[in-house]
Amino acid sequence: MNVTNVKAATHTYPVYVGKNLRHWTARYLPKTYSSILIVTDETVACHYLEDVKASLSQETIFSHVIPAGEKSKNIDIFYQLHTKAIEIGLDRNSLMIALGGGVVGDVAGFAAATFMRGIDFIQMPTTILAHDSSVGGKVAINHEQGKNLIGNFYAPVAVMYDVSTLTTLTRREIRSGYAELLKEALLADSNMYQSLIRTDLSSLTSQKLTDQLTRGIDIKAEIVGADEREANIRKYLNLGHTLGHALESMLGYGSRTHGELVAIGILFTIRVSEKIYAVDLPYEQIYTWLSDNGYPLQWPSIEPEDILVKMKKDKKTINSTIQMVLLQGIGHPVLLELNDDDVLGYLQRFQQELNYQNE
Amino acid sequence: MNVTNVKAATHTYPVYVGKNLRHWTARYLPKTYSSILIVTDETVACHYLEDVKASLSQETIFSHVIPAGEKSKNIDIFYQLHTKAIEIGLDRNSLMIALGGGVVGDVAGFAAATFMRGIDFIQMPTTILAHDSSVGGKVAINHEQGKNLIGNFYAPVAVMYDVSTLTTLTRREIRSGYAELLKEALLADSNMYQSLIRTDLSSLTSQKLTDQLTRGIDIKAEIVGADEREANIRKYLNLGHTLGHALESMLGYGSRTHGELVAIGILFTIRVSEKIYAVDLPYEQIYTWLSDNGYPLQWPSIEPEDILVKMKKDKKTINSTIQMVLLQGIGHPVLLELNDDDVLGYLQRFQQELNYQNE
Repeated sequence: MNVTNVKAATHTYPVYVGKNLRHWTARYLPKTYSSILIVTDETVACHYLEDVKASLSQETIFSHVIPAGEKSKNIDIFYQLHTKAIEIGLDRNSLMIALGGGVVGDVAGFAAATFMRGIDFIQMPTTILAHDSSVGGKVAINHEQGKNLIGNFYAPVAVMYDVSTLTTLTRREIRSGYAELLKEALLADSNMYQSLIRTDLSSLTSQKLTDQLTRGIDIKAEIVGADEREANIRKYLNLGHTLGHALESMLGYGSRTHGELVAIGILFTIRVSEKIYAVDLPYEQIYTWLSDNGYPLQWPSIEPEDILVKMKKDKKTINSTIQMVLLQGIGHPVLLELNDDDVLGYLQRFQQELNYQNE
Repeated sequence: MNVTNVKAATHTYPVYVGKNLRHWTARYLPKTYSSILIVTDETVACHYLEDVKASLSQETIFSHVIPAGEKSKNIDIFYQLHTKAIEIGLDRNSLMIALGGGVVGDVAGFAAATFMRGIDFIQMPTTILAHDSSVGGKVAINHEQGKNLIGNFYAPVAVMYDVSTLTTLTRREIRSGYAELLKEALLADSNMYQSLIRTDLSSLTSQKLTDQLTRGIDIKAEIVGADEREANIRKYLNLGHTLGHALESMLGYGSRTHGELVAIGILFTIRVSEKIYAVDLPYEQIYTWLSDNGYPLQWPSIEPEDILVKMKKDKKTINSTIQMVLLQGIGHPVLLELNDDDVLGYLQRFQQELNYQNE
């Protein structure tokens, strides 16, 4: 089992990565709790909820199952979690466990952060994608007008990553998670990038997955440990997300996965970086790898003008100016403010390029 | 003008108390903001909103007026504030100002704490009662099943207390605020207690009010500076609130004021303290002062058994055991866990006593 420690403003917490951790949950609790509420979704509940319940020996264990999918990250589910917590009598000495992917982690984490002004919570991610969201203390729900607009910085007391749960992931979910691993590699580690680009996602070994996941978590932990509240370098983690988030909210959450849209955002970032910094980046290599691994790379039928409007509503936007994370090389991210006309021009050229490549 | 500095986990912030501060808001901003949203309620808006707007010279000033009263501390108003913030384009470099009493401060503060995971906010209290809620960083909304159950610890960047706005308060509002000042005096300062008990609320001078308010804020600042997250001594501030909150949520917010019910809670606390610690406390003196100043002291028509159930749902309750703040003397608070039967007995005796005194 691997352990990475993550430094938050309030405390330092461990991220455990290993096989079958879900059968040993009690062993990794930082203290004794008066009661525990496990929050999970319909998909994950069938596979793993009973295992986790059984692994906690105490009597006061409750669970709450929410519908699967991004649409559950809303204010109603958030309020419902509070109602549940009140009805079962959670108190300030209770624990919430978020068992599932990013959606469960975000909404349950935000409920824990706000229930009686904050109780302990533990992330138990069950997707590759959630390696990103479960580390770093960002919790949130969506507003109808934008993703993650209502939330907190609220660090878990632990992250327990049972890699055995990843065996039930679909191809789409694996792709979605690997886009974030690609992002982390591009931000910080050219060796990891070389390893990724030679990985065939359809024949992933458990060992390879564990190694790459752990390396991704290490990179993330290092960045958020240095800048939890996103004053500076944490913004780098937004690589590929300025476009990715805009597309996601315009297409409706779920029609393509988060990672699939981040992948398109990464390609866009690379093209803009090449234009601005006149650097040579492996666009073709990444495009080919994404394509070979089944990422949908067609331009979605949305006009660049509309995307621009959406990008300006992103919460990374300051004074209505779009900020993008660009690359001066692998491992050399940089944050740049761009004016609207330039962004629009880049979007139009990128649209043409994707259309041409997918003809 | 008086300045008290309050230490929070994230930063130290000033509490300014003085006359006509609302005309000089810009002078006390800690930095320049890209835009400002002033949140206030219908009552306060008529009196002071234009003054505050005029005192901020920049162009990007917006305001949002919510209905007056405790019923506005709900999830819908909270979401509405987010919608407003998004629509006017607030970003991470924006400021929210809560202009009003505790309700405005709590709901706007919680919106600021969660908008894009937290933007700066300033408390501008316009009631005496809000001297308590505006200092210490507690922000929250109510759940249908309990008060302040959904919230954060989130410190403002400043508190600006314009005592000139207190001239428009009603007698009920003055009473409500003074119950919290009485609480602070009992917790920490017998001189302040002596001063209070000789104060006739119907002929309050501006100077006396400013002095007592400042002393109350100092006491609160000292306690929250030592224990922001309520791990230990901050719990003392709950004196009178275990019963007060239960009655408030059972009677429906608004039928009696928060302070009027806290006053009853304080009397209850004193009786319980006398029983348990065999100490001599000025019950009669406080009862007479409250009565002389028009506090309604009749027992509300609620059964002690039902109150007990509600008290157990208070978020200060741990492991379903009621914790009460008691007094071993003025300036000597202590926290005690009580069993249900004892609490019920104390409630029944106190009910009889109040009924007798009010016959």
